[in-house]
Amino acid sequence: MTKKELISTIKKKKSFLCIGLDTDITKIPKHFLKKSNPVFEFNRQIIDLTKDECVAYKLNTAFYEAEGVKGWKNLEKTINYINKTCPGIFTIADAKRGDIGNTSKMYARAFFENLDFDAVTVTPYMGEDSVSPFLEYKNKWVILLALTSNKGAEDFQISQKTSSPAGALAKAGANSPKFLFEEVIEKSSRWGTSENMMYVVGATKAEMLRDIRKTVPDHFLLVPGVGAQGGSLQDVAQYGMNKECGLLVNVSRGILYAGPGKDFAEKAKKETIELQKEMMEILFNNKRTR
Amino acid sequence: MTKKELISTIKKKKSFLCIGLDTDITKIPKHFLKKSNPVFEFNRQIIDLTKDECVAYKLNTAFYEAEGVKGWKNLEKTINYINKTCPGIFTIADAKRGDIGNTSKMYARAFFENLDFDAVTVTPYMGEDSVSPFLEYKNKWVILLALTSNKGAEDFQISQKTSSPAGALAKAGANSPKFLFEEVIEKSSRWGTSENMMYVVGATKAEMLRDIRKTVPDHFLLVPGVGAQGGSLQDVAQYGMNKECGLLVNVSRGILYAGPGKDFAEKAKKETIELQKEMMEILFNNKRTR
Repeated sequence: MTKKELISTIKKKKSFLCIGLDTDITKIPKHFLKKSNPVFEFNRQIIDLTKDECVAYKLNTAFYEAEGVKGWKNLEKTINYINKTCPGIFTIADAKRGDIGNTSKMYARAFFENLDFDAVTVTPYMGEDSVSPFLEYKNKWVILLALTSNKGAEDFQISQKTSSPAGALAKAGANSPKFLFEEVIEKSSRWGTSENMMYVVGATKAEMLRDIRKTVPDHFLLVPGVGAQGGSLQDVAQYGMNKECGLLVNVSRGILYAGPGKDFAEKAKKETIELQKEMMEILFNNKRTR
Repeated sequence: MTKKELISTIKKKKSFLCIGLDTDITKIPKHFLKKSNPVFEFNRQIIDLTKDECVAYKLNTAFYEAEGVKGWKNLEKTINYINKTCPGIFTIADAKRGDIGNTSKMYARAFFENLDFDAVTVTPYMGEDSVSPFLEYKNKWVILLALTSNKGAEDFQISQKTSSPAGALAKAGANSPKFLFEEVIEKSSRWGTSENMMYVVGATKAEMLRDIRKTVPDHFLLVPGVGAQGGSLQDVAQYGMNKECGLLVNVSRGILYAGPGKDFAEKAKKETIELQKEMMEILFNNKRTR
């Protein structure tokens, strides 16, 4: 999918909601367990319920791999079902892959050829040649981890180098040292363009979006962490939205497991509609004020 | 597998060779393509040929995922075949996974429960809570990426912070700033122990092993990059070996594709034996000099 097409979908649906299909067989309503394929059946119903209000689906590969071959079959069935029944929807393999060049090439083949996803999340640790094989595909996207929503983000992404005594750099008249995630965004923004790269920035660190926008004003940001992880949609929009929206806000557990029993459909739909309405308002205000 | 058992296997086989089963259907000898399952048949023959000279097999998940459901079946068949026919062999899922806690838990389930691997490679970018779910399994291992063998390692793992003008820290009397990979090793060495964590250090950066050994004298290091990527076994041993060996040196393409046609078996066996002999000599000298 092109950036233009994604923006057009956002405008049409008045939504920038991404739904994370992190489907855990131990958490779905019990009555699905009687079905021959509980995970796929649950996914199918969630997709049918929510496809008009969201612009993207994100499939977290871990939840499928945990079930082995059967899980990988469900990953395949689910992406095929989305591609067949939801024209114009953006699809993300949340796989957090990345390896030496000839291996990343294989991962790109897995998610862009064998499975027809629009985007794959990639981890930056191994540098440019671990990312570039994914960028060779036309109209496909890399979504690079920058600043994640978990506590562990503090370990390296926003850690200060431990051997630099506080004040040493300031005394020497140097600029303050950059955080790793800032280095990642700066360097990697030269590997691709805003037409084939996005960044993951957690909603739990929303105030940092303001500075990130100075470096990558035009890139889309995939923002997890709203809902179960405690991030706020209003904060994300305030600090991270650009004039073309530039955001995909992901909600997983907050929609999937909104209702624990047979009310799952009603509750999931209600939650999705509420999020879409809130997003519609944000988009309307964003348009008005710029 | 415990550390003691791994060391005992190394002593018994006089080898610290890990063979990487990065099986690419476009590179295996043509005559395999007539078989009903070329990739598994190739793996089976390579395993039968080499199991007496190596102490570990490393399966690169990308090469299996690229083939979709069939590939994941081959991953499963191959690990099951190794576990059945090679008692005492250490097995590694080279998957480079890592995500927020509840997702890493699913990856751990995938590789330690659904597939019975001894170890999985994990990327450190998301910090402690992305790694710790893997460490909860008894006698299973995390092999954390530290300093990889590819060119991209220079982008972040050994990059100097760009905003620190050269000399600024020295002038301020501060210690020189640490490289990211050094921070990763230092911090993460407190998350687990040398009984459940190893590090990936590329053979192409062998001289850096000397400093790494000061921080983690007792941890095993998984060393890729000997052979096709240009690293030297002698250098790796010189700078990285500890008194219990402490090394698993991986060779993939150099063995798998040593012979392009029907000579593949003979050539792969010859290459494996040569590596084992070189390792035997290194182990013998290591014992003598300590």
